Amino acid sequence: MVDILHRVGIKASLADTYKALTTRDGLAAWWTNNVQGDGKVGGVLQFRFGAGGFDMKVLELDPAGRVLWQVVDGPPEWIGTKVSFDLKRDGAFTIILFKHQGWKEPVEFMHHCSTKWAVFLLSLKQLLETGKGSPDPNDVKIDNWN
Amino acid sequence: MVDILHRVGIKASLADTYKALTTRDGLAAWWTNNVQGDGKVGGVLQFRFGAGGFDMKVLELDPAGRVLWQVVDGPPEWIGTKVSFDLKRDGAFTIILFKHQGWKEPVEFMHHCSTKWAVFLLSLKQLLETGKGSPDPNDVKIDNWN
Repeated sequence: MVDILHRVGIKASLADTYKALTTRDGLAAWWTNNVQGDGKVGGVLQFRFGAGGFDMKVLELDPAGRVLWQVVDGPPEWIGTKVSFDLKRDGAFTIILFKHQGWKEPVEFMHHCSTKWAVFLLSLKQLLETGKGSPDPNDVKIDNWN
Repeated sequence: MVDILHRVGIKASLADTYKALTTRDGLAAWWTNNVQGDGKVGGVLQFRFGAGGFDMKVLELDPAGRVLWQVVDGPPEWIGTKVSFDLKRDGAFTIILFKHQGWKEPVEFMHHCSTKWAVFLLSLKQLLETGKGSPDPNDVKIDNWN
């Protein structure tokens, strides 16, 4: 079992960071501009990209600093995996500890997704610090897969 | 045992990509501008940053597409871990599959290093595609640790 891990620190409040992770408008401003569905606990959010998409069931939402999703549809390697964001304050920063857990094998696609998550988390940082993120289709391209 | 994995694709030749990973001038142009030491197999390269540094023993060098280092000095969590770059061609791209393997625990610092490796691999891509990377101290800052 192998995981994707990341850490970013954002000069924004924990409440604003949480909002960008838990509202369709927030998510559309840093991950992909095509977000549909129900973002409440037990609901399913649909994220669509040029290259496909992911359906995420919302398992946990805690405004104190935790968001947990489970992938219920998307690429086979993603189905059943869990994506979490744990937030805490440290000095002037809101720190996000990100995990995408439950990959069965460290396939080449997992390498790609790891780098791509970093790009999107930096888009989230940019959104909260400057007012403008770089969600799909205007995301930073990293390789021949996107 | 947990690993950091990344994938980037670079519109440059495999030979030029390999050179940027195996010469002091190349490494200084995308990772940190302070690189010293001996880059041959069995030698030790010293990478220095504002926040500290790493000494890497060069274990493998294969111009067909592989570089393997082992960390012999640096932060305690890094010592003994291995960093590898596997290169291959795919269409117009040289693909790098990157691994930083052998972390004992998925500590918070590992989350930070995972994101930071993505930033530096994109600096390498930028270097080879535009002629200018963003090595330390001009690297993209991701959090309160750097």
